[in-house]
Amino acid sequence: MKQKVYNLLHKNEAVTKFIYGLIILNVIMLILESYEEYRLDFGLFFQIIEVISVIIFTIEYLCRLWTANLQDKFDRSRLKFALSPLGIIDLIAILPFYLPMLFPIDLRIVRILRLMRLVRIFKLGRFSKSLKTINEVLKETRDDLSITLFVIFILLVLSSTLMFYVEGEAQPDKFASIGHSFWWAIATLTTVGYGDVYPVTAAGKLLSAIIAIVGIGFIALPTGIISSAFVEKINKETNGEKKVTCQCPNCGTKFSV
Amino acid sequence: MKQKVYNLLHKNEAVTKFIYGLIILNVIMLILESYEEYRLDFGLFFQIIEVISVIIFTIEYLCRLWTANLQDKFDRSRLKFALSPLGIIDLIAILPFYLPMLFPIDLRIVRILRLMRLVRIFKLGRFSKSLKTINEVLKETRDDLSITLFVIFILLVLSSTLMFYVEGEAQPDKFASIGHSFWWAIATLTTVGYGDVYPVTAAGKLLSAIIAIVGIGFIALPTGIISSAFVEKINKETNGEKKVTCQCPNCGTKFSV
Amino acid sequence: MKQKVYNLLHKNEAVTKFIYGLIILNVIMLILESYEEYRLDFGLFFQIIEVISVIIFTIEYLCRLWTANLQDKFDRSRLKFALSPLGIIDLIAILPFYLPMLFPIDLRIVRILRLMRLVRIFKLGRFSKSLKTINEVLKETRDDLSITLFVIFILLVLSSTLMFYVEGEAQPDKFASIGHSFWWAIATLTTVGYGDVYPVTAAGKLLSAIIAIVGIGFIALPTGIISSAFVEKINKETNGEKKVTCQCPNCGTKFSV
Amino acid sequence: MKQKVYNLLHKNEAVTKFIYGLIILNVIMLILESYEEYRLDFGLFFQIIEVISVIIFTIEYLCRLWTANLQDKFDRSRLKFALSPLGIIDLIAILPFYLPMLFPIDLRIVRILRLMRLVRIFKLGRFSKSLKTINEVLKETRDDLSITLFVIFILLVLSSTLMFYVEGEAQPDKFASIGHSFWWAIATLTTVGYGDVYPVTAAGKLLSAIIAIVGIGFIALPTGIISSAFVEKINKETNGEKKVTCQCPNCGTKFSV
Repeated sequence: MKQKVYNLLHKNEAVTKFIYGLIILNVIMLILESYEEYRLDFGLFFQIIEVISVIIFTIEYLCRLWTANLQDKFDRSRLKFALSPLGIIDLIAILPFYLPMLFPIDLRIVRILRLMRLVRIFKLGRFSKSLKTINEVLKETRDDLSITLFVIFILLVLSSTLMFYVEGEAQPDKFASIGHSFWWAIATLTTVGYGDVYPVTAAGKLLSAIIAIVGIGFIALPTGIISSAFVEKINKETNGEKKVTCQCPNCGTKFSV
Repeated sequence: MKQKVYNLLHKNEAVTKFIYGLIILNVIMLILESYEEYRLDFGLFFQIIEVISVIIFTIEYLCRLWTANLQDKFDRSRLKFALSPLGIIDLIAILPFYLPMLFPIDLRIVRILRLMRLVRIFKLGRFSKSLKTINEVLKETRDDLSITLFVIFILLVLSSTLMFYVEGEAQPDKFASIGHSFWWAIATLTTVGYGDVYPVTAAGKLLSAIIAIVGIGFIALPTGIISSAFVEKINKETNGEKKVTCQCPNCGTKFSV
Repeated sequence: MKQKVYNLLHKNEAVTKFIYGLIILNVIMLILESYEEYRLDFGLFFQIIEVISVIIFTIEYLCRLWTANLQDKFDRSRLKFALSPLGIIDLIAILPFYLPMLFPIDLRIVRILRLMRLVRIFKLGRFSKSLKTINEVLKETRDDLSITLFVIFILLVLSSTLMFYVEGEAQPDKFASIGHSFWWAIATLTTVGYGDVYPVTAAGKLLSAIIAIVGIGFIALPTGIISSAFVEKINKETNGEKKVTCQCPNCGTKFSV
Repeated sequence: MKQKVYNLLHKNEAVTKFIYGLIILNVIMLILESYEEYRLDFGLFFQIIEVISVIIFTIEYLCRLWTANLQDKFDRSRLKFALSPLGIIDLIAILPFYLPMLFPIDLRIVRILRLMRLVRIFKLGRFSKSLKTINEVLKETRDDLSITLFVIFILLVLSSTLMFYVEGEAQPDKFASIGHSFWWAIATLTTVGYGDVYPVTAAGKLLSAIIAIVGIGFIALPTGIISSAFVEKINKETNGEKKVTCQCPNCGTKFSV
């Protein structure tokens, strides 16, 4: 029986596709619900889907928990699943539904609980090869990314502090503090440039020009790192691992590894 | 006779250049027609060119269809041509001209039919080496691109949902729904930043900053993939397998490695 | 005598630095002249520098022309210099000064002649290693760049035509023609996004989003090509040419090339 | 005693972490101080932290100066430390505090002195591996970066001069001089595009489009150079020389290649 459930969850393609589809449906519903006109017209319909989804996700979670000890047959394998990222995601995906039943909850928190349904999108991580690839790329480049993020932070602090001192007097509302100036630095160094904040004094413009030319290169580092790691990963997966030919120093046999 | 027509279409450089030029002329005409002043002054002239072009393109299409079975001499080679991308493009390029003659057509649809003349630009795909190169690059990187496009979609959904919840109350008109918020996410993550939508609350700005720094790297993935595949393709085409010619300093034999 | 002049121009570092400095001075003057307040206050001073510069550049040009046949001793070496890019630049750099003396010239054309002094900046190409490197990179990647520029042009035409049809009715002033729409396409696909033109209808925003995500990758191709060619060129210059070890098939001697 | 102090500064992790933390605290304080509300409420508190920090940094500086001759035992090792980048940074980090005590100082200069406390952020360079990596990358690519910065400067001058002549008459306030036009060139070529300055004439838009497509590739060169050097550096550090361990299938000897 247990083995049957386990196979259904892990090997049955129909079940996998059904859960995959249900997740997508939940995300679409979350988006549609944000339109007031749809919320008013289809409110009941959305609630029915929500209840059915939660029931299915709950059954799925309990089954995964129940069959968790089939794979590595240790006592703690259930706890291990419950504390794994995907296990926690599965729990958070259903918890917001049950919490208001257990505790009296503030309306403000209900809003956050509703938002937490967005976590369901990460349940796709179990099925989608794309998300797995990205996940692996991020793990591999973790060190490089943390280095660059630290440097970016230093750069943002430097830029916004300088800009605050140079431009603060001319535009006391937009460069009111280094925090406000930070928003300018983000918009400039990412090259988004919304246009709500920009220097107006000659000194501010000169400083902004220098910061832009020097800084954009650093802000683009994570992009470059992720991009090159991703291209490399895909190439490896496509071409297979490179073989190395070597000769045994003992007996002289040549072979490739 | 059939062979003669086939050679005219496939090997005669003058015919090729003539059709190439006619396509360019049609695109220029399409652009000029969009200016009301030109449409009023040269309307008749444009119509004459249109009629002549359609006649030539129709003859070209029929000839290609007729001579299609010369290349691989199978029964279905004509059907194969008619269903090939370039065959379909050839058909769509002339169809909008004949449809209103066959059926009574709504004025609204006429507008769309006129737009379909834009498809003629893809007829260049037969002649332009540039478009062929790009086409091949896209085919080679199809898998990688579909992975990244899926990840980008997830990222856009996440960003716009979060932003809708954080900024929705402060700007109920610009972040009215997750769909509206999506437009902000596109403008921010592609770094276009028109400036029509941007967060105004401190929380929204902070979230926007984090999304921008983290997300831009992912949105740039297709750019990186296409770019590196293109550079690699060009390098391969230019260099072939690099050979070095050398001369033995001992006996003077010349050979290449 | 001729040899002496030749050496002064090509090997004397002081002369080289003097001309280099004079070019920079001319560029700075051109910039300062654009400020009305400086033009009024220092107008005479600017004119004196201009006259002196032109005299020196004229002498330089005549000397280069005179000594041109020292290098390869052919009859046409002077003509060859006069028609070389740097020779033409040298001529255009001084011509605008003499033209108004020879012909009665319209005031409108005087404005253009004044602008032509900007050409002097390219005289730096003779002295600056940076400009030489960039020039070589551009020459090497000429084919790739022309391919991508053609594709970019097709993409811009496609995007702006589609946008004109979708958004034209809602914003008849900003998307008045495909030409107007072109300006939107440039701002979007280069991710500059000034914010003077952007879609307002839902259909326009959706189309804009798709164009942005798909198109930015192509617009970034020239950037990627120039960047990778430049990095490669610099690496080659730094590391020297890679050596290949090979063995003569005739006598078995091993050597590296 | 001297050796003990030296070890405390260079090998004791607690001391290192304490100074590291103090620097971060100082940066946070600098940011908070820029908010008027915090400056009014916690002004005294900020001043106390400032005094304590300066005392600690002064002691640190004097100790480093005192123990400088322990490492290479030459007479001038103290002078060498005092003139090293990190030594100068250490001095500038505390000097602004003492200067007003020694000389009567203008209020305007006090403002600049306060800003100089920002230099403390660079003291992190001694402790942070991230900043060291970036520093090395910048040193390695110094030549390439200076080449591209010169080319970028030429490009900016060319673009803004042309734009000034083309657009100056239509927008005499925004393109009042080449200097003003420079601000447009920066915003366009870095693709920030705030939207405060953009061409409105057809000629200006056409020129802007050409400049954008051609120029963005060059402005992105530093980004590409830094990015590729950084990725290469990280790869080298992580992989060292890649070794593959293998076992001979014939005799079972294990060895690495």
